[in-house]
Amino acid sequence: MTKANNPRESENLQDHTKRVVNLLHKHKLVEGLVHTQQMPRQELVEALVHKQNLAELQNLLDRLHPADVAHILEAMPLEDRLMIWDLVKAERDGEILLEVSDAVRETLLATMDSGEIRAVAGQLDADELADLAPDLPRSIIDDVFQSLPMEEREKLRAAMSYPEDAVGALMDFEVVTVREDVSLEVVLRYLRRLDELPDHTDQLFVIDRNEYLRGVLPVNKLLVSDADAKVGSVMNTEMVMLHPNDKAHEAAQAFERYDLVSAAVVNADEKLVGRVTVNAVMDFIREESESEVLNQAGLRQEEDLFAPVWKSLKNRWTWLAINLVTAFIASRVIGVFEDSIEKLVALAALMPIVAGIGGNSGNQTITMIVRALALGQLNPNSAKKLFTKEIAVAAVNGLVWGSVVGLFAYMIYLSIPLSLVMTLAMTLNLLLASIVGVLIPLTLAKLGRDPAAGSSVMITAVTDSGGFFIFLGLATIFLM
Amino acid sequence: MTKANNPRESENLQDHTKRVVNLLHKHKLVEGLVHTQQMPRQELVEALVHKQNLAELQNLLDRLHPADVAHILEAMPLEDRLMIWDLVKAERDGEILLEVSDAVRETLLATMDSGEIRAVAGQLDADELADLAPDLPRSIIDDVFQSLPMEEREKLRAAMSYPEDAVGALMDFEVVTVREDVSLEVVLRYLRRLDELPDHTDQLFVIDRNEYLRGVLPVNKLLVSDADAKVGSVMNTEMVMLHPNDKAHEAAQAFERYDLVSAAVVNADEKLVGRVTVNAVMDFIREESESEVLNQAGLRQEEDLFAPVWKSLKNRWTWLAINLVTAFIASRVIGVFEDSIEKLVALAALMPIVAGIGGNSGNQTITMIVRALALGQLNPNSAKKLFTKEIAVAAVNGLVWGSVVGLFAYMIYLSIPLSLVMTLAMTLNLLLASIVGVLIPLTLAKLGRDPAAGSSVMITAVTDSGGFFIFLGLATIFLM
Repeated sequence: MTKANNPRESENLQDHTKRVVNLLHKHKLVEGLVHTQQMPRQELVEALVHKQNLAELQNLLDRLHPADVAHILEAMPLEDRLMIWDLVKAERDGEILLEVSDAVRETLLATMDSGEIRAVAGQLDADELADLAPDLPRSIIDDVFQSLPMEEREKLRAAMSYPEDAVGALMDFEVVTVREDVSLEVVLRYLRRLDELPDHTDQLFVIDRNEYLRGVLPVNKLLVSDADAKVGSVMNTEMVMLHPNDKAHEAAQAFERYDLVSAAVVNADEKLVGRVTVNAVMDFIREESESEVLNQAGLRQEEDLFAPVWKSLKNRWTWLAINLVTAFIASRVIGVFEDSIEKLVALAALMPIVAGIGGNSGNQTITMIVRALALGQLNPNSAKKLFTKEIAVAAVNGLVWGSVVGLFAYMIYLSIPLSLVMTLAMTLNLLLASIVGVLIPLTLAKLGRDPAAGSSVMITAVTDSGGFFIFLGLATIFLM
Repeated sequence: MTKANNPRESENLQDHTKRVVNLLHKHKLVEGLVHTQQMPRQELVEALVHKQNLAELQNLLDRLHPADVAHILEAMPLEDRLMIWDLVKAERDGEILLEVSDAVRETLLATMDSGEIRAVAGQLDADELADLAPDLPRSIIDDVFQSLPMEEREKLRAAMSYPEDAVGALMDFEVVTVREDVSLEVVLRYLRRLDELPDHTDQLFVIDRNEYLRGVLPVNKLLVSDADAKVGSVMNTEMVMLHPNDKAHEAAQAFERYDLVSAAVVNADEKLVGRVTVNAVMDFIREESESEVLNQAGLRQEEDLFAPVWKSLKNRWTWLAINLVTAFIASRVIGVFEDSIEKLVALAALMPIVAGIGGNSGNQTITMIVRALALGQLNPNSAKKLFTKEIAVAAVNGLVWGSVVGLFAYMIYLSIPLSLVMTLAMTLNLLLASIVGVLIPLTLAKLGRDPAAGSSVMITAVTDSGGFFIFLGLATIFLM
C-alpha cells in the first residue's frame, strides 16, 4: 500500500474519491449502517454528498463495520478497490482481509509488502491466522510462527493442520471454562472480573482439572438459577460434542437441527480443545451452497467479478473442455448415422429434441438424489423404492411428452412412422435418463466422492449420445 | 393417527418395527444423540439390536430431539413413516411437525383428524402456528384463532400477514425487555425470577414506557459490567433494527455480516414488535439456497423423496414443457436449413457441438452475474466493465475452442472451408452467449424479477437456436 505523495497523484485520488463516493451513495453500499440509531442514514448520505473529499471518505470507512468495508471492496473495480484499500487504517487491515472473498483478498494482498503483511498477521488470533494462511507467502507464515508464544504456536499449528471441510477449520479457541464444584455466585464474580466475554458465548464449558469436558453451563441458565447452586447441579451433561476431524458438513447439520449458538470441540480423549460458533457455521453453509451453484454451472471457484480476463479463462476452461469432449462423442454418434440422415433429413431437425429433453429430465432426477444424499435420507433399502418411482415417472413422462413430440413431428413431416419412432425414442431416452440419473450419484457416493460434482456433466453426456443413438438407431431400423 | 387394535395389525406393526429399527441402526439415523454423554452411542445401539420391539422403539423416539425424529420421518418410505408417526407421543406432534419438510408434513397431516390437528395447534406459539398455517385446513385455523387470548390472536394475525420472504415471517415474539433507568443488579434479580430465558437470548431489549426501542443490552455485557451501573449507561445504541416488511434476504445478509445471534424487529414508529434469531435465519438461508439448486434443475419445489408418482410429475412438468417449446423452436431453425444438411450431412453431426458449448459458456456467465446481483456487487458503473470483460473472455474462448473444434472437424471431414466455418460459428455463438448471458439477468433484475429464475432456460434457448442458425447459416453462405 503506497500513499499518494505528490499533488498530481492526490488530485487523481480526489477524482477517484468523488466517483467512489457517488457510487457508494447511489448504490446504497452504505446501507450497512442504515438501521443504527447513532448514525442515521440521512446524516451519512448528506456527509457523502456534500463533502466529497478524501478525509470524509476515510472517516466514513473508519466508522463502517469491517464486513461492510469488505463488501464495498468486493463491489469495486480493481482500481477503485485499491484506492479504498489505501484509505483503510492499517490496524483494520486484518479484520477486513478476513471478511473479503478469497479472490478479492488475493488482489489486496498483492499490493502489500511483506512488512505490512507481517503487521496484519500480528493482529490476528491463531484460528484467524489459519484462515488467511493459504493466501500468505510461506516465509511470512514462518516468521509469524516464530514470533508467537508457545501456546499460540501450538494452536496455530493445530488450526492449520485441518482440511477446509473439517470441524477443526471452523474451530476457534475462545472458550470460557469453569469448574463443576464452584457455585454460580463464584462463576458470576469470575466473569465480572473479565473485560468482556468472547463473541457468541452462550454457554460456559465445565471442565475438570485434566481438561476433560464434564458439561456445559448455558449463560441463560446461569442467569435464572439460584446463585448458591453448584455448577455441577445446574450444568447440562447432554450436549453436542464435535471432534476436530468430523466433517464440517455434519457439524453444520447439528447446528441446524439443534439450533445451536456454539458447540464444544473435544479431542479423542474428550479433552476440550476449542469451540465452533454459529457464525462460522453460517459462513460455511453459505460457501458450501455457493460452490454447489458454481460447480453446477462449471465454474471452478468464485470469481472476482473484475478479475483479469486470463483469470476468468483459467477458472472456466476445465468445464468447457470436458463438455467439448462429450460433444465430440455425441457428434461421432451422429456421424455413424449420416447415411440415414442423408436419406431422411427430418432426423437432423428432430434429434436435438430427444437429446435435450432427456438431459433436462435426467438433471431433475439427479438433483433430487444428490439432495437426498446430502441430507442423509437415502439408504439401500429406500434406494430400491426410489428407483421404481423414478422409472415410473420417466415412463409416464416419456409417453406424455413423447406423444406431444410425436404429434409435433407428424404436423411438420406428415409421417406416422416417423412420429411413432419419435415417441418411442423419447420414452426410451427418458427411461435411460432416469436409470442413469439414479445410478450416477449413488455410485459416486459409494466410491466416497462428492455426488454433486460432475454428475450433471455425466448425465448430459449420456442423454445426448444416448438420445442421438436411440433415435437415429430406431429410425434406421424402422424407416430406412 | 389410528392405533393398531386387533392382533393381526399389531403383528404387522412388530414386523415393521423390526425393519425400521434395523434401518435406524444400519444407517446411523440415530446419530443425533451420538455425542451426548448420558446416552452413549453404544448403549443406544445395543438397546436397538437386542430388544427390537415396539415399546423400545417408542422409548427411543421419546428420547430423541424433535429434529432427529423429523429427520427419521423424512428418510422413511410412506408406510414406515406413518408407523413411526403413530408411535410419537401426541404432545410432541407440534414440535415435530415444525421440523419436517413441507412435503413430508403434508403426508403426516393427511393422517390426522381435525381433533388431533386442533390439539397440535394448541401446543404452539403464535409465530410457530403461522409457519404451519398454510398447511392446515382453514376451519381449524379459525377455531384456533377464536380460542386464543386477545394478545396472542393479534400476534398470530400479524405473523400470518407477512409474505414468506419478509422479515415478519422469520420473526418470533419472545423478547425479554428491560428499562433503561434501572441498575444491572435489578435486571439480574428480575431475570432470576424467570423460570428460563427464551432460546437465543443473547441480548435484552431496552424499551421505554411507550415500547420504543432505546437500545440493546447484550447478556455478555450484563455479566461483565458493574452491577451498580444503569442499563442506559451499559446498553448499545448502535444496533441492527429490522422491519417486518424488510426482505428476509437482507436480514440474512445482516446476520452474516455482523455475526448476529438475534436482532430486534421494530415497526415504522420504532416500537419493538419482535425479534429474529439466528436459527430462523439459518433455516431461511438453507431453504433459499436449496430452492436455487432445485430451480436450476427445473424442480418447482422440494419433493418428498417417496412422493407418489403423480406428485413428482406435477412438480416437474412445467420445466419440461418450457424446454420442449424451446426445443421445438430450435428444431424449426434446423428445419429451415434442411436443404443444406441434405447436401452436406456433416453439418448435422457438427451442429450440436456449436450449440452445446455456447450453452455451457452462457450458463457460466449467467451464474457469475446472478451471484454478483444477489450479493449486491453490481451497479450500472461496473456493469459496463463487466460487459467488456465477458466479451473478451468469450472472444478468447471462441478462438481457442473454435480452433480445437475446427481441427476436429477437419480431421473427420478433411475440409478446410468446413473447419473454418465451424471455428467462426463457435466464436460467434460464444459471443452471443456472453452478451445475452449478461443481458438476461440484468434485465430481469431491472424488471424487479428474480434473476436466478428462468435465466438458465433462456440462455440455453438462445444459444441452441442461435448456434444452429449461425452455424447452418454460415455453412449455407460459404459452403453451398
